[in-house]
Amino acid sequence: MTFNERLNKVCAAKNSLVCVGLDVDLKKVPQFIIDKKEPQVYFSQAIIDATVEFAAAYKINTAFFEAYGAAGWEAMTKIVRYLPDDVIKIADAKRGDIGNTSKMYAQAFFENLNFDAITINPYLGSDSISPFLEDEEKGVFILCHTTNKGAQDFQKFSNGNKALFELVAEQVQQWNTHNNCGLVVGATYPDEMKHVRSLVPELPFLVPGLGAQGGDFDLAIQYAIDKNGLGAIFNFSRSIIYSSDGADFSKTAGEQTQQIRDTINLRRSS
Amino acid sequence: MTFNERLNKVCAAKNSLVCVGLDVDLKKVPQFIIDKKEPQVYFSQAIIDATVEFAAAYKINTAFFEAYGAAGWEAMTKIVRYLPDDVIKIADAKRGDIGNTSKMYAQAFFENLNFDAITINPYLGSDSISPFLEDEEKGVFILCHTTNKGAQDFQKFSNGNKALFELVAEQVQQWNTHNNCGLVVGATYPDEMKHVRSLVPELPFLVPGLGAQGGDFDLAIQYAIDKNGLGAIFNFSRSIIYSSDGADFSKTAGEQTQQIRDTINLRRSS
Repeated sequence: MTFNERLNKVCAAKNSLVCVGLDVDLKKVPQFIIDKKEPQVYFSQAIIDATVEFAAAYKINTAFFEAYGAAGWEAMTKIVRYLPDDVIKIADAKRGDIGNTSKMYAQAFFENLNFDAITINPYLGSDSISPFLEDEEKGVFILCHTTNKGAQDFQKFSNGNKALFELVAEQVQQWNTHNNCGLVVGATYPDEMKHVRSLVPELPFLVPGLGAQGGDFDLAIQYAIDKNGLGAIFNFSRSIIYSSDGADFSKTAGEQTQQIRDTINLRRSS
Repeated sequence: MTFNERLNKVCAAKNSLVCVGLDVDLKKVPQFIIDKKEPQVYFSQAIIDATVEFAAAYKINTAFFEAYGAAGWEAMTKIVRYLPDDVIKIADAKRGDIGNTSKMYAQAFFENLNFDAITINPYLGSDSISPFLEDEEKGVFILCHTTNKGAQDFQKFSNGNKALFELVAEQVQQWNTHNNCGLVVGATYPDEMKHVRSLVPELPFLVPGLGAQGGDFDLAIQYAIDKNGLGAIFNFSRSIIYSSDGADFSKTAGEQTQQIRDTINLRRSS
């Protein structure tokens, strides 16, 4: 089964378009977590246990583990292995390099860590991305339009007919011969998201920017999902995993995830 | 001292513009290395010992360490710590993310690993880069025009007046208020390099693409260096570190580095 087929299958089976983002910053977790032997692992496993009923995907942000060195990498390894097989496991790594180097990154994230998908930066072009596309069961989400203010610096650069982020969307459509390409399209720029969806009706979107970054729920859901009510997953990191700084952090994370799932489902069925 | 001042000072003191790239692929090292306890560390330390007299900088390609998991990250940590203080230590990581995530990457590479500089992908714009620029002693080399074929997919995207890689160069010039920004400009596109140098006469270049990738030596040196014969470092990875697959691998690596240094110095003084 191709990655994009599996993504939709998982979302349909779990009746959820929610992706939980594990951006595990030890400065933000409840104080008592710090005393645990492997605090990032302990925290993440508790979050996973509490949210897995309501989530279709998990996105591990590599920066938050690299910040803790080899121990952080080891923690990330344990967390991705802890995730069950019926969710989509995404490495939010934003990698991309010349061919022989991208091949090593693909080995790191797909073969060794067994992630299902990875986020990729398109700046280096097709041959930087092709090493990630060889296995149709593994997916890439290529940065198209990001959530941040700086998205306007280069992604909006236009030749009058189209902007860079639109060119990226069109190119990724061309690269999707194995049905394993998607796009990262931020919820904080709904007009751009609407336009990208019109350009590439069938590519799945990974949508950050709801939750802590303040993107508009209604517009994002309306514009991101495809004609079947699938084709998009919505990521929530801080707003789920730091929903309480007490001993009930995992309970509230589960409740938050359930509520977000239901809110999205209500809107996509209406 | 700002990063860019220190870079030129080191190059002048060592009379070298050579950067040795540590892309340590255990499939390519001499067979006997594999049996060592920490083969990536053993190999890299031997290469460093043999080349340090002739090199101004070392560039560690993170992909080649991430491919070996937490042990690879640990090896990278040991290697960067082994490098002496009188060389420039560059993490070739090509990172870049929204602000709070870039901050974690900066912590990982600058604070924890004590690299002097990092390579950054510009796609996410200014606020993805600013967390790396706060400390004037730490430098960033932002991808401008890369060496690969895919560089033409997006970097050449033009509005008629300028292409994306030129816009990146101009923007980076604006961001260089702490004198710690440089550009990655590949030697395989000499015309573009010449043009970038004319746009930003004072930004240092990190130049890949000589050696295994076949860029033109004469043109790269002519176009990359500034009016003082400095302002650029030329990276060589495979052509130095895999110059022999026998027990003499470090000896030949040292000889190669010396020869490359001398070749560059001859051309920059002529």
